Amino acid sequence: MNISRTDVKSQDKNDPLASMAKAFHLPENMIYLDGNSLGAMPVAVVERIQQLVTKEWAEDLIHSWNDNNWFRLAESIGDKIAKLIGAESGEVIVSDCVSVNLFKLVVAALKKQKGRKKIVTELGNFPTNAYVLQGIAKMFDGQVEIVAVERSRLEQAIDDDTAVVVLVHAHYKSSEMFDMEAITNLAHDKGALILWDLCHSAGAMPIELSALNVDMAVGCGYKYLNGGPGAPAFLYIAKKLQSSLEQPISGWWGHDNPFTFSEDYIPAPDIRQAQSGTQSVLGLAALEVGIDTALVADLKDVRDKSQKLGKLFIQLVQQNCPDIQIASPEEDDKRGSHVSIQHEQGYAVTRALADRGVVVDFRAPDVIRFGFAPLYTSYENIWDTVEHLTAIIQDGSWDKEEYKQKATVT
Amino acid sequence: MNISRTDVKSQDKNDPLASMAKAFHLPENMIYLDGNSLGAMPVAVVERIQQLVTKEWAEDLIHSWNDNNWFRLAESIGDKIAKLIGAESGEVIVSDCVSVNLFKLVVAALKKQKGRKKIVTELGNFPTNAYVLQGIAKMFDGQVEIVAVERSRLEQAIDDDTAVVVLVHAHYKSSEMFDMEAITNLAHDKGALILWDLCHSAGAMPIELSALNVDMAVGCGYKYLNGGPGAPAFLYIAKKLQSSLEQPISGWWGHDNPFTFSEDYIPAPDIRQAQSGTQSVLGLAALEVGIDTALVADLKDVRDKSQKLGKLFIQLVQQNCPDIQIASPEEDDKRGSHVSIQHEQGYAVTRALADRGVVVDFRAPDVIRFGFAPLYTSYENIWDTVEHLTAIIQDGSWDKEEYKQKATVT
Repeated sequence: MNISRTDVKSQDKNDPLASMAKAFHLPENMIYLDGNSLGAMPVAVVERIQQLVTKEWAEDLIHSWNDNNWFRLAESIGDKIAKLIGAESGEVIVSDCVSVNLFKLVVAALKKQKGRKKIVTELGNFPTNAYVLQGIAKMFDGQVEIVAVERSRLEQAIDDDTAVVVLVHAHYKSSEMFDMEAITNLAHDKGALILWDLCHSAGAMPIELSALNVDMAVGCGYKYLNGGPGAPAFLYIAKKLQSSLEQPISGWWGHDNPFTFSEDYIPAPDIRQAQSGTQSVLGLAALEVGIDTALVADLKDVRDKSQKLGKLFIQLVQQNCPDIQIASPEEDDKRGSHVSIQHEQGYAVTRALADRGVVVDFRAPDVIRFGFAPLYTSYENIWDTVEHLTAIIQDGSWDKEEYKQKATVT
Repeated sequence: MNISRTDVKSQDKNDPLASMAKAFHLPENMIYLDGNSLGAMPVAVVERIQQLVTKEWAEDLIHSWNDNNWFRLAESIGDKIAKLIGAESGEVIVSDCVSVNLFKLVVAALKKQKGRKKIVTELGNFPTNAYVLQGIAKMFDGQVEIVAVERSRLEQAIDDDTAVVVLVHAHYKSSEMFDMEAITNLAHDKGALILWDLCHSAGAMPIELSALNVDMAVGCGYKYLNGGPGAPAFLYIAKKLQSSLEQPISGWWGHDNPFTFSEDYIPAPDIRQAQSGTQSVLGLAALEVGIDTALVADLKDVRDKSQKLGKLFIQLVQQNCPDIQIASPEEDDKRGSHVSIQHEQGYAVTRALADRGVVVDFRAPDVIRFGFAPLYTSYENIWDTVEHLTAIIQDGSWDKEEYKQKATVT
């Protein structure tokens, strides 16, 4: 039996997270399904940033490092993120961008795993991971080998010469998720360290880093954590590894006591060691609001809704545009919080949807991603989106030259 | 003949930069002499950040990457900074923090200078430089040697085995400046590359990177550029070196065409290559306001006033507290934009001054820095400051237990 708009409205009525949407600013006449790229603005950001700028910076100036606790922000926000990813207090810190954090942790892992020269990763996942690993291999002049394989060949690829396995938890295009527990154990069985990139999962589902004995992780602040454009990233190092993993960008913020201005670097004996230099306090403050907003919701409810939104989208697409190829797993537990479809003119379709107020994104060469942010996406949003998608596919209105002219950022 | 307050007031009257102060928010009842650590807030920041948050993020969301030019911000702000440091358009980009930028450039320099293993630097300058170099040496397992020497022994230390010379242009404690031209030539004569850290000079004086044939530079956005707490940093690579210097943190933002999502890293053939990941757009936006504000002033006026402010401070201290040891050069052309004094209980003196509304900072073990930001520091500020300093030194009111309890950030 076909799903009706009435069915969908009743899902919204029964949604335990329905009241969360009002914590976000959502533009009128827009269905925003790109929170997997840039999360919507939590309403409380406006006041927090105003206070930061007009009071803490303008009035309190340098005293804010102590008096407004700027100095410990990266740690205190890290502790809040820890709650979202199943880590302990003191295992997570906010720092730099994901690429820099990947670099720091992978180099640290290679040092710790001296004698092992392989880095195993997945072929075709988010490019920055591949690029950062390539840069590391080049830097170490052939002493390091990158083994990038299809997902199905991972088990075979991880061997006794593997120093570290670097994987993106939920695929940036297909949304397909790894079984974190199985792969972590696989790596450990071979004596390899595991590093999970949580960019497309943190904030959208429960994650259990400590319980699964994960060694390292990185993640992004501006997607499901709603920290704002280019929000600082985070990294996680399991407590048991903090004394033996030494990251290479040893700037003064990683020093155990930076304000002694000593000549020699003495790394902090804890997660602070992962820091390098001063971080954007504006970026940190906005991120904290995003995290505080996320912490209000139960992550089990978030995951449950995320799966239902994805399932509803897939069912409605199959019901209304059966020719469209779904490029994400149909099994709810194998899928992250976005669903992708394939279309050979995907970019033009994305633009045509935008003209109808539906914001999604395109990933070359032919993927359109529909991102569902359970804190502010409604079931009716999904209904309306598929209605628009069906219309432009059926009437061919996406097929215009103006829609095919690519912008810099797709 | 002693200097009088009337003399000082007439200096303010004749100051061509006097009108610049109104572009900044300066707290009432405070003399802020710590712009060398955190610059004051340009008034225009409030509106710009509000627009960024409530319009560009909240309303335009992901479209802002193209429509509000977020994607090119790091380059366009870099081009503006280039004007302040005598670089060409396309030679400067905003990215990461100073420590990360130092790391990137020094590793790139070592690769380019294969066969040379020494990094020459100054002993006792800003710790992050020493720490980052130590981290690099450790990462390369003894293939790199750090030669850290007193300023007077630099010439001797730079030799045919020197890959790169890394120096802070104006000393963070003493304010003593290097002769950039002489040292750059010295390095080049030996075939070494030169990297200048402009943290304590950019924005406070004319700098001529291109004219002096400087290879690389890094600098900070939150001091004399008034970009806000933890503002993103910048880096400079001379055009002639951009095709041969490859920085190691090759994230997707350094790719020539990041939105093709290709499997292999192809570095951008220009300064964009120095980028790694997504930067804080809030941080970038505030920094841009700081730079725009700085660009209004003529840097020759800025340097002239900076030297006069420093000279006035030194003269007034010598006139009123002759026992105080000046820890900065008395020659105007050898001094940056702050003047330091030494006091064995410097921290307590700093706290006592703060209680009188004079904000300066302490650098262990015994240095008090008085920072003069020519865009908003007045000559009368100097008069009043020395009056307060004289009072607390003469009546010993700094000598209290409460003033000796150190805060985390000094």
